[in-house]
Amino acid sequence: MDRDILIGGDIGGTHMRVALVERHGRILHQSRAATDVQAGVPDVVKRLVRQCLEMMEMAHRMGRRVHAIGLGVAGKLDRRNGAVLFSPNLPPMNGYPLAGDLRRALSVPVVLENDADSFGVGESLLGAGRGIPNWIGLTLGTGVGGCIILSGRLWRGDELGFSGEFGHMVIDPQGPLCACGLKGCLEAHASSSALKQGVRAAVACGRLSSGPLHAACLSNALTSELIHHQACLGDELARELFHRVGWTLGLAIAGLFSGLGIRHAVIGGGVSNGWDQFIEPLMDSLARHCSMLEPADMVIRRSELGDDAALIGSAHLAWLEVPAVVNGLESHTE
Amino acid sequence: MDRDILIGGDIGGTHMRVALVERHGRILHQSRAATDVQAGVPDVVKRLVRQCLEMMEMAHRMGRRVHAIGLGVAGKLDRRNGAVLFSPNLPPMNGYPLAGDLRRALSVPVVLENDADSFGVGESLLGAGRGIPNWIGLTLGTGVGGCIILSGRLWRGDELGFSGEFGHMVIDPQGPLCACGLKGCLEAHASSSALKQGVRAAVACGRLSSGPLHAACLSNALTSELIHHQACLGDELARELFHRVGWTLGLAIAGLFSGLGIRHAVIGGGVSNGWDQFIEPLMDSLARHCSMLEPADMVIRRSELGDDAALIGSAHLAWLEVPAVVNGLESHTE
Repeated sequence: MDRDILIGGDIGGTHMRVALVERHGRILHQSRAATDVQAGVPDVVKRLVRQCLEMMEMAHRMGRRVHAIGLGVAGKLDRRNGAVLFSPNLPPMNGYPLAGDLRRALSVPVVLENDADSFGVGESLLGAGRGIPNWIGLTLGTGVGGCIILSGRLWRGDELGFSGEFGHMVIDPQGPLCACGLKGCLEAHASSSALKQGVRAAVACGRLSSGPLHAACLSNALTSELIHHQACLGDELARELFHRVGWTLGLAIAGLFSGLGIRHAVIGGGVSNGWDQFIEPLMDSLARHCSMLEPADMVIRRSELGDDAALIGSAHLAWLEVPAVVNGLESHTE
Repeated sequence: MDRDILIGGDIGGTHMRVALVERHGRILHQSRAATDVQAGVPDVVKRLVRQCLEMMEMAHRMGRRVHAIGLGVAGKLDRRNGAVLFSPNLPPMNGYPLAGDLRRALSVPVVLENDADSFGVGESLLGAGRGIPNWIGLTLGTGVGGCIILSGRLWRGDELGFSGEFGHMVIDPQGPLCACGLKGCLEAHASSSALKQGVRAAVACGRLSSGPLHAACLSNALTSELIHHQACLGDELARELFHRVGWTLGLAIAGLFSGLGIRHAVIGGGVSNGWDQFIEPLMDSLARHCSMLEPADMVIRRSELGDDAALIGSAHLAWLEVPAVVNGLESHTE
């Protein structure tokens, strides 16, 4: 059986991306659709099935057959039963047996993975984590996801449905309120939600009363891209917000390096496009807060694969998780 | 060659403890001497050699031969060269090639280990970590040490000379000054130094002006045992200080559980004798700060081996590190 072609997917709060991927990570084709979870989960699933069917037909035209589907989803997962336990960006999906539904509709094994874990496996295979045995990954998007690669493999901990959830580590108990209800989580400082909330707070307290960020805030059109653009133009508030992203990331990574005895991190996700605005305060904060390592020994890399990392990673994880069945015998050669 | 008898040692700021240990952890004999590092490192080494010689003679009388010596030392170590790189409680030892000196004096392989790592291996073998594949350990003493056990083995990270250094994770950037120069490290909240500093600060600001803690502070006789005793008698300041120990431990462990995807921790060290005074705030703080797990699923255990954990662990690590040489061929059966 041809095991070398897979579908990798990334189900985000805004978009669903699906790709036809070769086992070693080459993306042959990909598509994107709106998630639009407001339309109801059955509708989301229907559109996702359609995306996957397109990929399967494409594989068929190449004379190949999709071996398995891996889907990256933010949140805590029940991987054994293929269900989303709790997804902050897709609350209607909570408790939904997504993998089973897709498997029945497509007659292909479906594996759910955490999206940041998929990112980690993708970057480890072909991106910024290539050749580094031990590292932590952080994805800065609507929220902050994370992963741990140990001895070259994704670390799953006690298989509790989460691992590398650095976004909800409390960085500053007096810090801003997080979506999870705690105060001062990394996510409340270093996500696009935190950037936008920072602008909203400045408007609310009267600090910001004009300019593009003010206008965008009033028309509910704030994006982390706009905040970054304004920071590049010298806007003081926007620069401060990105400075805080760097400072808190440095603080968090310092603790993780000291705790894990490692020295490499990879940062991805949409907010990492603001790299130029946060990397300096990040490195300063890291040097200041990690008493175990010399600053020169600590390596912070930017994602090399961008949005493709999670697609490549979820496809590869599906390959790892779904063994070949040859004459009724399981075989797994890698 | 008899590989089944070893010496395990624990070199602390106050005492040096050395034990004759069977490979599987049974302690046959142990001795304790003052470290007295003020007398100079050569003098410390001389006394340590004497302690080890006693153990070797004892083994000889049993018709056995010590295979290797493992020494637990607080701080960052160069394990390959058997040198202490930086030891907060034994600063004169910094850069000292301790293992080589002992090896020459005793003609037995000597391995240096971090004391908290030794604790972890001891508890994993025969104590509170028995049968738990993934857990973190915290030793609350003069400072706060830590270790990580993953898949039943001590995790050494990138072999940078440290791992599990949770004591210098910043828990509260606005918190008290730590000995390492940072503000708000776990160690600045949850060590015996932090407890004593808390009393001194209360005396300095006029909050504490009478009673046993005040008297002990003035006569430079504060101990964490006395502070615990006073907490048990209902002293408000002492109770608050132990409450802070629990609260910050809960905060730190919550982040580590979320990050590592695990749910077990073991706490040891002298301050853990104040268990009754900090375990309740610890569990409250843990429940409050870990959004990924149900409170009932998180397990915090108290060290079962106490001071013996590091002796047993360092001996076992020496066994693991020093392979048998049989006819010039290295063999390692476990």
